[in-house]
Amino acid sequence: MAILYADDPADAAAWSAAIRALDPGLDLRFWPDCGDPAEIEFVILGAKAPGDLRRFANLRAIQSTWAGVNFLLADTGLPPERPLARMVDRGLTASMTEYVVFHVLDHLRAGPRLRAAQRERRWLELEPRKPQSVTVAILGLGALGADAAARLHELGFTLRGWSRSGKELPGVTSFAGLERLAECLDGAEILVCLLPLTDETRGILDARAFAALAPGAVLIHAARGAHVVEADLLAALAQGRPSRAVIDVFATEPLPPEHPFWRHPAITVTPHVAAITRPGTGAEDIVANYRHALAGEPLINQVDRGQGY
Amino acid sequence: MAILYADDPADAAAWSAAIRALDPGLDLRFWPDCGDPAEIEFVILGAKAPGDLRRFANLRAIQSTWAGVNFLLADTGLPPERPLARMVDRGLTASMTEYVVFHVLDHLRAGPRLRAAQRERRWLELEPRKPQSVTVAILGLGALGADAAARLHELGFTLRGWSRSGKELPGVTSFAGLERLAECLDGAEILVCLLPLTDETRGILDARAFAALAPGAVLIHAARGAHVVEADLLAALAQGRPSRAVIDVFATEPLPPEHPFWRHPAITVTPHVAAITRPGTGAEDIVANYRHALAGEPLINQVDRGQGY
Repeated sequence: MAILYADDPADAAAWSAAIRALDPGLDLRFWPDCGDPAEIEFVILGAKAPGDLRRFANLRAIQSTWAGVNFLLADTGLPPERPLARMVDRGLTASMTEYVVFHVLDHLRAGPRLRAAQRERRWLELEPRKPQSVTVAILGLGALGADAAARLHELGFTLRGWSRSGKELPGVTSFAGLERLAECLDGAEILVCLLPLTDETRGILDARAFAALAPGAVLIHAARGAHVVEADLLAALAQGRPSRAVIDVFATEPLPPEHPFWRHPAITVTPHVAAITRPGTGAEDIVANYRHALAGEPLINQVDRGQGY
Repeated sequence: MAILYADDPADAAAWSAAIRALDPGLDLRFWPDCGDPAEIEFVILGAKAPGDLRRFANLRAIQSTWAGVNFLLADTGLPPERPLARMVDRGLTASMTEYVVFHVLDHLRAGPRLRAAQRERRWLELEPRKPQSVTVAILGLGALGADAAARLHELGFTLRGWSRSGKELPGVTSFAGLERLAECLDGAEILVCLLPLTDETRGILDARAFAALAPGAVLIHAARGAHVVEADLLAALAQGRPSRAVIDVFATEPLPPEHPFWRHPAITVTPHVAAITRPGTGAEDIVANYRHALAGEPLINQVDRGQGY
């Protein structure tokens, strides 16, 4: 009859407050103070389990506070027969869309050239470009990709989208399946990656993908570090296709101080800050999923372990 | 029976194409090739007249391609009894909103701190702030201010607006009249200036206005250089209120190389690129206003010379 919180202890107070605001009667416990393991029916965790969850014999479901569950699916502490839900939080979605819109506008409005001109005290009177003239290719059309697409559509950009199975969205020319990826990227000026990390998408941002872009293109990558073949990106930047990369996620985080991305003049490093789940909004799905788990119903955003998300 | 184009010759071809696409039969002439002055009924100009327009005895109306007409109202070449229209172009409005949204998001997402951290190869994992927690005060609620407010409202910011006469807009707490300016600015974290330049608004961004803001606030100024008391801004930046300023318009343009704004660490200079009128969209109002002028009807966006806009 209890929920065990086993995510980052630094966030425990915020989650506790948000969950209890929705249902003050819940028996919420905090790792490692589990009480009687037989009472734990629902576990909340982040990107990894705190040891083996099989010790909770009556566990009904597992809820991640993360949108991407690639780390959890590789975690041997998770009993694979228990339903697992990932978090698609509207607070996180809003943050991600802000991040994408900000960096897309920076490219549209020639931010890097204007900042360089200021350093030289040079009055560089560039005419604003029309968003319609800029093609943005969005990889991944789940909750995050769809929301970013909606906002970029309102701003007038020309949009393409790519996903595993295809998805119709207003103002977006949609492409499905790996065999159509090159077509989606062909001549695109901005490439936004918001894909889940799966066996199919690992290393998808490689030399071939970059070669399809328009010269001078920009990569905005806020999905997972393992989507990028780093050596290919560095070689592609040297050729100017893309000419710039904005990267929020890395194979190793924190990004080690000696990593070449930090000092690369064409790379903007952001420290995995594009979007995080916010307890205030995320708690709604957690409480709902606890009830679904008790009732034996499917979870909100339940992970399909075969597909990997 | 003719229209005279007397704006920047560099833009003549674009305006000509856009106007003729709407009405190929118009007699469009280009300064200084006016033909018979008695045939000129309508003049298109930018921020100044090419000499005295009284030589066109049958002039019915004057159309500026600029949104702000403060320079034209001081131009002795304009016959004050002829109707004057300013340009409120949706292309310009869209550009201005992009500029405002971009710089507001840069503040929300701690852009300056993250860029400094990258220079130091420091992994600064900041939690994204909620737009709801950031109060944006918009000065000027005309076409530009209202459009920026609408987009910022969608993004979730807390909005206040100030204008001469007050204006109700969704999600905006509205203030009217100089006596309520301090109330509008009180504790605001972002101040966006999109005002017309009039006798009342000249120097409105002064020590008193800055002192009303929240510590660490940012100024985003894309109206006219003369709205700012430059010495007051430099003194206010030294006190951290505002802590940063993004400025697109200056008392003297181009901004002279020796001007202190260029090298100020807390000032982002953009070279009057926030928004320009686009012939493709702006031509619609010009052709419509020519017809209104011939029919003796009021012009679209006709200037009230008493109010100054």
